[in-house]
Amino acid sequence: MPTAIRTISRADAALVSAFADYGVATVHEAQGRTGLMRSYMRPVWPGARIAGSAVTATVAPGDNWTIHVAAELVQKGDILVVSPTSPCEDGYFGDLLATLLRARGCLGLVIEGGCRDVADLQKMRFPVWSKAISAQGTVKETPGDVNLPIVCGGQQVAPGDVILADDDGVVVVPRLHAEAVLTASKVREEKEARIRARYAEGELGLDMNGMREPLAKKGLVYRDAPEG
Amino acid sequence: MPTAIRTISRADAALVSAFADYGVATVHEAQGRTGLMRSYMRPVWPGARIAGSAVTATVAPGDNWTIHVAAELVQKGDILVVSPTSPCEDGYFGDLLATLLRARGCLGLVIEGGCRDVADLQKMRFPVWSKAISAQGTVKETPGDVNLPIVCGGQQVAPGDVILADDDGVVVVPRLHAEAVLTASKVREEKEARIRARYAEGELGLDMNGMREPLAKKGLVYRDAPEG
Amino acid sequence: MPTAIRTISRADAALVSAFADYGVATVHEAQGRTGLMRSYMRPVWPGARIAGSAVTATVAPGDNWTIHVAAELVQKGDILVVSPTSPCEDGYFGDLLATLLRARGCLGLVIEGGCRDVADLQKMRFPVWSKAISAQGTVKETPGDVNLPIVCGGQQVAPGDVILADDDGVVVVPRLHAEAVLTASKVREEKEARIRARYAEGELGLDMNGMREPLAKKGLVYRDAPEG
Amino acid sequence: MPTAIRTISRADAALVSAFADYGVATVHEAQGRTGLMRSYMRPVWPGARIAGSAVTATVAPGDNWTIHVAAELVQKGDILVVSPTSPCEDGYFGDLLATLLRARGCLGLVIEGGCRDVADLQKMRFPVWSKAISAQGTVKETPGDVNLPIVCGGQQVAPGDVILADDDGVVVVPRLHAEAVLTASKVREEKEARIRARYAEGELGLDMNGMREPLAKKGLVYRDAPEG
Amino acid sequence: MPTAIRTISRADAALVSAFADYGVATVHEAQGRTGLMRSYMRPVWPGARIAGSAVTATVAPGDNWTIHVAAELVQKGDILVVSPTSPCEDGYFGDLLATLLRARGCLGLVIEGGCRDVADLQKMRFPVWSKAISAQGTVKETPGDVNLPIVCGGQQVAPGDVILADDDGVVVVPRLHAEAVLTASKVREEKEARIRARYAEGELGLDMNGMREPLAKKGLVYRDAPEG
Amino acid sequence: MPTAIRTISRADAALVSAFADYGVATVHEAQGRTGLMRSYMRPVWPGARIAGSAVTATVAPGDNWTIHVAAELVQKGDILVVSPTSPCEDGYFGDLLATLLRARGCLGLVIEGGCRDVADLQKMRFPVWSKAISAQGTVKETPGDVNLPIVCGGQQVAPGDVILADDDGVVVVPRLHAEAVLTASKVREEKEARIRARYAEGELGLDMNGMREPLAKKGLVYRDAPEG
Repeated sequence: MPTAIRTISRADAALVSAFADYGVATVHEAQGRTGLMRSYMRPVWPGARIAGSAVTATVAPGDNWTIHVAAELVQKGDILVVSPTSPCEDGYFGDLLATLLRARGCLGLVIEGGCRDVADLQKMRFPVWSKAISAQGTVKETPGDVNLPIVCGGQQVAPGDVILADDDGVVVVPRLHAEAVLTASKVREEKEARIRARYAEGELGLDMNGMREPLAKKGLVYRDAPEG
Repeated sequence: MPTAIRTISRADAALVSAFADYGVATVHEAQGRTGLMRSYMRPVWPGARIAGSAVTATVAPGDNWTIHVAAELVQKGDILVVSPTSPCEDGYFGDLLATLLRARGCLGLVIEGGCRDVADLQKMRFPVWSKAISAQGTVKETPGDVNLPIVCGGQQVAPGDVILADDDGVVVVPRLHAEAVLTASKVREEKEARIRARYAEGELGLDMNGMREPLAKKGLVYRDAPEG
Repeated sequence: MPTAIRTISRADAALVSAFADYGVATVHEAQGRTGLMRSYMRPVWPGARIAGSAVTATVAPGDNWTIHVAAELVQKGDILVVSPTSPCEDGYFGDLLATLLRARGCLGLVIEGGCRDVADLQKMRFPVWSKAISAQGTVKETPGDVNLPIVCGGQQVAPGDVILADDDGVVVVPRLHAEAVLTASKVREEKEARIRARYAEGELGLDMNGMREPLAKKGLVYRDAPEG
Repeated sequence: MPTAIRTISRADAALVSAFADYGVATVHEAQGRTGLMRSYMRPVWPGARIAGSAVTATVAPGDNWTIHVAAELVQKGDILVVSPTSPCEDGYFGDLLATLLRARGCLGLVIEGGCRDVADLQKMRFPVWSKAISAQGTVKETPGDVNLPIVCGGQQVAPGDVILADDDGVVVVPRLHAEAVLTASKVREEKEARIRARYAEGELGLDMNGMREPLAKKGLVYRDAPEG
Repeated sequence: MPTAIRTISRADAALVSAFADYGVATVHEAQGRTGLMRSYMRPVWPGARIAGSAVTATVAPGDNWTIHVAAELVQKGDILVVSPTSPCEDGYFGDLLATLLRARGCLGLVIEGGCRDVADLQKMRFPVWSKAISAQGTVKETPGDVNLPIVCGGQQVAPGDVILADDDGVVVVPRLHAEAVLTASKVREEKEARIRARYAEGELGLDMNGMREPLAKKGLVYRDAPEG
Repeated sequence: MPTAIRTISRADAALVSAFADYGVATVHEAQGRTGLMRSYMRPVWPGARIAGSAVTATVAPGDNWTIHVAAELVQKGDILVVSPTSPCEDGYFGDLLATLLRARGCLGLVIEGGCRDVADLQKMRFPVWSKAISAQGTVKETPGDVNLPIVCGGQQVAPGDVILADDDGVVVVPRLHAEAVLTASKVREEKEARIRARYAEGELGLDMNGMREPLAKKGLVYRDAPEG
């Protein structure tokens, strides 16, 4: 029985939007190298970064009807996250639906499927991360679910989770961990800034991080030239 | 016996070029969601859109000789559409052949194979849709056919069919349907413009398209919060 | 036993950097269509071309420790070439390591794995060719080798080989062949310039290269219209 | 912090093993076409069918240490379900670990990674469903988690869920739904037996299921011969 | 408008079934190395070989309704050939539909999609060539076409074409060429038998086929040992 | 200039054939987890295991001419290892060439390409490991090299290296290391036999290998039940 949940819990709006100050790689590290979607989830145009609360939806293969159901339930600051119930790369989403979602305050789309009208989406600056670019049209015959937990890009996504997406991909932060992960991201970024400055001066990671001894313990040997 | 057909039927030139006013997604919809090549057929540089008459060619794997045969037979306004006789991603085509094709009036290339010199092709603004980018060179030992029907990107292409290609991919319009599909594309675009305007105002597809009742009939239920 | 070789032979610096005057496609042709890495090795941002001496490294799957070992051994004008010991698309490399490598004079990275922080890498103009873009973090538990011969992108790479990379991909020139291949590249480019000029005038490859007779010998027939 | 949960809830043993009377396709249908792992999850030898309770584990890429942790926690009737924390097709599992798991009562393995010693596993009749067959060895440096929820083959798997696997693939039945799904599977199989008997007599689905009218409503037209 | 053509032309039944005396590789060679479907079209169980007349069908992604329409139109000696209108690997076909098709005299199925119940299909000895094995269920909402030309496995298939399938794959022989191709297949097989006998005696292809001189002309040189 | 080397060094015949007593997984481990070809190199029929000396060859895409050159140079106990100069899955090899190679004493084929006549090859018990099964025919226009070093399945293979192949895949043992690796394989197998016996008794790897303390040091914690 297809089900749409109207009311979901979201993290605090300011907290969610603060994630956009950090890159996907940083946040993924900050939460212990978890939550990253598979690398086939790629931006359809480069240079965007968005952070928002997940509204989730499932769609039947070749059928985008549920996106209309979800469009009513998204709120300002949300990101729509969509998975087909079986793998499908059809073009579920284009500039019309982007216009609709934007009018509802939705920041962008993450879809384990296809996307079309990519030139228009870039002109509109509506960001989409998808598995494929395809103009293949879809039908409206079989509704799916909205705001139930889904798997997208190999990661579990619950409604209300924080989604952060940029040119490196998409990371999912469980809603209840959002504050801790944001704090850890900030700490990590500050640490990275210090490391970056020292690397820029020519300092080696080997020295800065005391790696020489553990490498030797693991058996690394240096030789001046290859064996004769 | 490799065969080159010198004389093919093309649609009216003005009709063909008028397709470039529409996107691949629109035209694909307008002809009943048919004719779209597989999503692995991608532009080697972004932002181009071309419409032309197909000159078709087959090439042996790793052998681009037939492209020279085709180059003599292309005319102003044509698009060369090439398929290998078995799957091959070698770099069949680069800036030299692009120079040759452009001098003959050819608008661009669609190839279920590889393409190279992509930085030069972008500088020349010669558009190519291909399965791969690869510098791998090819030989000239085995001729294929020119202007016989081929399968490219999973679609049947007959010589003289209309090809429309943009950032969303490549769609094939059978020559004899071209006029009807162009008309349908215009109708569709006008309809989309009206929808876009209403979506931009925040109207929902659910309401605009009367979807609430059919969704309910399909069993969609709304709940205020998840179970349990 | 993981091994790092400190001293490798490089080709003459002026010779190596002269390769950057030519495209990957040209050099690959000039050395007899050999040495090209697989087409899945793609630039993470477009428009770069670099030529340098290979410093090679192997990394364990999901483990980038060896890149730190290699960072000490790269010199001005080198390109780091990295392969995992089993296929892995994790994000082995990002802007921090790029900062480190650049400070050591390294021109860029070629990795049969994943890369992250691609927006930052583009801002820094640090070029990377990789199999994937992925933010997935890595550990530092298992050292690999530096400056032993490796296979990367389906090609054998020895330390000190010349690496040339651009938007078409990556080609490997064995160190001892570098001078001859550079000369052949120059010859080829001059020849291509002459061909390009004649193609631009509308001359056909069929005529310019005397292809009509050999095509006929291979059985190519022309017909004015399709059968039936 | 890597975590191993010692105590998990399992469905009733008789209930779980009763699933092995049904095929994956039947059970997947019976629970509303949900829970099926991706089609790249294939048996390493044909002809097995097992049903058991999931013990879940994550492994680092190229690192099978956690399987030893899980081996202590599996019980009679369990199936071990393993996912790498980033995609990896190394040979995490072979006949030694199969011997260990079997001695603990474990019925088989489902792994989104590689498996080796497949000839021996077939001789032992120890069934494995995996993404790849690879002899590539793994290390023991980085522990993962045991008995936390994971995503495997694109499906969420919680510890204690029922896993059913056969030549068609792998389906996950949430523990709390197991009884209802088993009942529905039985109903479905009985229904299928009746349909099968009528099909075998030459009756058409069109007639048996009253499809002619709905097909006509969807616009299906019959013609005696193709156009033109 | 979905369309089903009731009446198609088939080649002579004895002619069609005679193809099963030859392998796919032989027939593919005999018709000039054309007509072979892509190598991802694989038998779901090994050891079958069938030859029959194509009844073609298209199916919507995740929707197998049209197979019921086709089931009425297949005749004794036919092979059903099915393509989705966009790529989809769902399990469109299982033992129930196989029972139905067999009762109608259909010899087997070729589908650019998924197939399920493979253990049962093997027990029934009903052969299927498919792109995937998947238990994923399908709906019955959107009819496709029956007996219009389709592209399947990268090849054009017209209704009534001869289909030959074995462990090597699937080849399509255009109906009007069937007699000539069958004759050529017989000639080829006799020739192969003679070659096989001579190879078995230790004769070299180099000598038997006079390859030494053409190889030398192409520049092949022999050396007694590697350089240097 | 295509080159065929007549004389290569092989390891001692008894030494080479002794490798067939061990599995690919064992030998790969015994030489430090190196030398394993990529997992897409699969046997075309199950159950074979062969060990032999590599005779190497390159082939042009879609061109199997060089296999005839190699057939003269293989000796009793050799395995032919073939790579295309650019990726190609055509059917380079079938039962005719298998008859020829067997008559020359060749034990089997490893090819990063396609193979055909697989039912016949299984009847003949001629083993082949390939990237694909494809009936697609090839031409004889462009010779490659025989007995120069190649990359096959992602591994460097020098003529005379020991090749071991079974259902787990293909491993390459450098000729000069063969004796040491064979010894290490024997040691490893004996060790594995002892481990297997203890595992079969229900002993845990955790205890047998003293893993509990290092796991705790890496931070592994046990909990009796999940949080919350």
